Amino acid sequence: MPAQSLKMGLIGAGRIGRIHAEHLTSRIPSADLIMVADALGEAARECAERYAIPFATPDYRAVLDRSDIQAVVIGSSTDTHARIIEEAAQAGKHIFCEKPIALDLSSIDQALDAVERAGVQLQIGFNRRFDANYRRVRQAVAQGEIGQPHLLHIVSYDPDPPPIDYLKVSGGMFRDMTVHDFDMARFLIGSEVDTIFALGGTMIDPTIGALGDVDMAVILLHFTNGVIGTIENSRHAAYGYDQRVELLGHDGAIRTENNYPNAAIMSDGHSVRREPECGDYE
Amino acid sequence: MPAQSLKMGLIGAGRIGRIHAEHLTSRIPSADLIMVADALGEAARECAERYAIPFATPDYRAVLDRSDIQAVVIGSSTDTHARIIEEAAQAGKHIFCEKPIALDLSSIDQALDAVERAGVQLQIGFNRRFDANYRRVRQAVAQGEIGQPHLLHIVSYDPDPPPIDYLKVSGGMFRDMTVHDFDMARFLIGSEVDTIFALGGTMIDPTIGALGDVDMAVILLHFTNGVIGTIENSRHAAYGYDQRVELLGHDGAIRTENNYPNAAIMSDGHSVRREPECGDYE
Amino acid sequence: MPAQSLKMGLIGAGRIGRIHAEHLTSRIPSADLIMVADALGEAARECAERYAIPFATPDYRAVLDRSDIQAVVIGSSTDTHARIIEEAAQAGKHIFCEKPIALDLSSIDQALDAVERAGVQLQIGFNRRFDANYRRVRQAVAQGEIGQPHLLHIVSYDPDPPPIDYLKVSGGMFRDMTVHDFDMARFLIGSEVDTIFALGGTMIDPTIGALGDVDMAVILLHFTNGVIGTIENSRHAAYGYDQRVELLGHDGAIRTENNYPNAAIMSDGHSVRREPECGDYE
Amino acid sequence: MPAQSLKMGLIGAGRIGRIHAEHLTSRIPSADLIMVADALGEAARECAERYAIPFATPDYRAVLDRSDIQAVVIGSSTDTHARIIEEAAQAGKHIFCEKPIALDLSSIDQALDAVERAGVQLQIGFNRRFDANYRRVRQAVAQGEIGQPHLLHIVSYDPDPPPIDYLKVSGGMFRDMTVHDFDMARFLIGSEVDTIFALGGTMIDPTIGALGDVDMAVILLHFTNGVIGTIENSRHAAYGYDQRVELLGHDGAIRTENNYPNAAIMSDGHSVRREPECGDYE
Repeated sequence: MPAQSLKMGLIGAGRIGRIHAEHLTSRIPSADLIMVADALGEAARECAERYAIPFATPDYRAVLDRSDIQAVVIGSSTDTHARIIEEAAQAGKHIFCEKPIALDLSSIDQALDAVERAGVQLQIGFNRRFDANYRRVRQAVAQGEIGQPHLLHIVSYDPDPPPIDYLKVSGGMFRDMTVHDFDMARFLIGSEVDTIFALGGTMIDPTIGALGDVDMAVILLHFTNGVIGTIENSRHAAYGYDQRVELLGHDGAIRTENNYPNAAIMSDGHSVRREPECGDYE
Repeated sequence: MPAQSLKMGLIGAGRIGRIHAEHLTSRIPSADLIMVADALGEAARECAERYAIPFATPDYRAVLDRSDIQAVVIGSSTDTHARIIEEAAQAGKHIFCEKPIALDLSSIDQALDAVERAGVQLQIGFNRRFDANYRRVRQAVAQGEIGQPHLLHIVSYDPDPPPIDYLKVSGGMFRDMTVHDFDMARFLIGSEVDTIFALGGTMIDPTIGALGDVDMAVILLHFTNGVIGTIENSRHAAYGYDQRVELLGHDGAIRTENNYPNAAIMSDGHSVRREPECGDYE
Repeated sequence: MPAQSLKMGLIGAGRIGRIHAEHLTSRIPSADLIMVADALGEAARECAERYAIPFATPDYRAVLDRSDIQAVVIGSSTDTHARIIEEAAQAGKHIFCEKPIALDLSSIDQALDAVERAGVQLQIGFNRRFDANYRRVRQAVAQGEIGQPHLLHIVSYDPDPPPIDYLKVSGGMFRDMTVHDFDMARFLIGSEVDTIFALGGTMIDPTIGALGDVDMAVILLHFTNGVIGTIENSRHAAYGYDQRVELLGHDGAIRTENNYPNAAIMSDGHSVRREPECGDYE
Repeated sequence: MPAQSLKMGLIGAGRIGRIHAEHLTSRIPSADLIMVADALGEAARECAERYAIPFATPDYRAVLDRSDIQAVVIGSSTDTHARIIEEAAQAGKHIFCEKPIALDLSSIDQALDAVERAGVQLQIGFNRRFDANYRRVRQAVAQGEIGQPHLLHIVSYDPDPPPIDYLKVSGGMFRDMTVHDFDMARFLIGSEVDTIFALGGTMIDPTIGALGDVDMAVILLHFTNGVIGTIENSRHAAYGYDQRVELLGHDGAIRTENNYPNAAIMSDGHSVRREPECGDYE
């Protein structure tokens, strides 16, 4: 571990929280994770044991109360995000929080106000901005490599729908899944959307339809700079996680392919093939 | 030339007419092109000389009057298609006609009635149905290789806008260009469209906007079988003609890549690359 | 058929002869094939009937005797090539002959002398020089796009071994198959080979080994300009005809991929794949 | 850091030693690197400071003398490998050592004897066996996915020649670079080589020729199981590190592509391209 490290606390030890615990303890040498909180005390203890985190607690305020903790990662359930952001900001902690901040605008505004007043850093978990593929597309736009952008197309499919219990509280496909693509669209084009039209359906799982949600959709976007964009979403792609973007500009186009587990190509009398990505949905 | 051949006449000796003349005389041994007509008599004569067609005429009726001619190819201007189809059918000729039949439905219905009454064959020039790539996608749908189709995406870009004189009479981008994609969408999915929504813009050439037309567009389609489709059109792709399709089904996906002039890949310190298609728009 | 055409005769109506008959009658409008000869008179007659060739004969000299025939295509058995080239040259005909001219150098020299004395054109059927992929590689070398060439690698696999009767008279794999790759190596590099080393084996069909032949081999070439090359040959590739080349130069590299029947890519839980080339061996 | 970790020492703090220091301290949580040795004491101290390693020493025997160190990584100069392996084994340490053990067989045998007597683990740094691409090829062979292997082709190019001082002591290209490919060939085929033939040249840098070494070569291998293999080596590939393998078997073939920094593809009027690997030689 490097001499200079950031003392951190983790709030939420569920699926995403444990991923953060693993990254903070074994892949980010400059992070020093010293406490984990989860309302389910047992979950906090198990996480602490597995990742050698010194302290565990059922009360996230115990994390905020420690003066030696400089920053927190919030991976608790969505309905707690806004409140914990607010309290963490008031406690002077820098914050990384999973998306979304909240499902209503007033809670979001209140949380952002608290962050601004406290002068702390806040980052929301829009991870794709750090993906090498999307970064390269953004770079191409920013540096004018393809000229003025005209048409944007985002493909974003999950391998399988999330558990039905998650779907009941997620806010629906547009809020829990398309939110990444909305972020990507604005990130890539560098302009705001002024018109939006969406068409959805439920061809994958009727249970999803019974919840009043859709399991596939196409969203049409018109940007203030004239670009027209489409987002294609599906809760189910048989070949795994599929995340691609295409962007046509006046002087050329850029598009990304998916990543694969290896670059081996097999040929026989039936096909010329590679192995599909075997990703779980995020 | 094979012993068994079909005696044919060509009506229209403009750009597309000359392409048909070349194919009929040098690439389709079973066709025997014996007469070419063009209102511009000089164009008919030049075409006849270049492709060794025995007879040339300024009057397309001279083609229809020859009893030895069994079939005609119509490549004259759009506004003459419906009338010539009708007359050719009445003359008992089989017909291949360039798209579209007409720009209004009543003319189309009248032409189709004449064809039905005469009992002749009529084919409209939707050439992509015979392209190896699109055929393979259609085969995958028809044979259930990807399961129930969910999402369709068609990319269709021309390298450059056609001449402005053509645009003035073409009926607009949706009628002269998207018509191919509308045909493809129905061909690939095997279902009819019940809802359509389109967003267009003019970012390529303001002259096109001044005509009341668009030069780029996204069309959203909902099919009666539940499939949601998108068509992306642009009058300008710097890298040449771009014609691709993606189709996500329940059990897998199929998509096509463009064709290229060769399969050579060059690598140096700047890139790993192949040569772009150098196609002219069709 | 264009006004200006070349009157031609075909000698040999076997497998390759019929391919030439088809090309000359239906794909090359400027060729006018008027006579076909085959020692098996019946084969000549059938070929003439199928491709509407006016005259058939069991005697190739009948082709050479016709003063209106300007050029001949020789696709008869290998042991007759040199003699027919000589006689055709003496008759003042231009000549296209399938490879090889002969299996011994003195016969080749005698045939070439006759061609030179008669001042006619002679082309041997090294078809790959006209393949878009190999041409692009040659162009890259000739134009200095990859700098000074260093290492050449040629892959040349047939789907399956030819019939054993053919193998008995073909002269062996190096003469009937590698001959194309030897031609390619010299064509691509533009330099002569001064050292050669080969390693062969029979892992595909022991019958081939019993003939004293090999069914797979690697040939190492050293060119006078310093380039080192390898040729990989196999009589059997389960995925079809495989013809590729890689060339590393000082400033970059160029390599070719195979051609495929279409550009459709299918993805499912098992693989991301395209269809293999379904080529028959040439 | 996990509760259970392996206490380790590092011997050699040069280029490769520092890479091991980084991996052991930040990417392998179960490793606990507590001491670094380098004959240049200053290098050991700098390395210790940068990677927060508790102890630094100019004497590698200080590492071997510590009873709490369970395993050592040897990344010192090649001429010291055999001796340090021997001493480390005698001290009861498990060993990871960079290739090669030595340049003469008797030193190698003596080192291996010491390891066997001590009953410790020894691993040599043939890293490619752990590369996802090569592993997939090995798996295909081992599981019979392509049937009986027939032809193997290994491409192994470095971006640029190593420093001339390194070349003077490396033992030559075959020993310092091809050694990886010799290992790969045996690993992939699972059989030993009984015949070898090589052709080398110096077309990249005459200084290398003046040392009696080559800077490009092709090595032909015959395996006891009948497989024929080729290795292509070059000290210079303008597009970066190039490491690929192709394997033709009776029932199919498998080959690998290089890895790339991202999966973005740019198209314009000049090319359809991706960015080359920007690898430094290993």
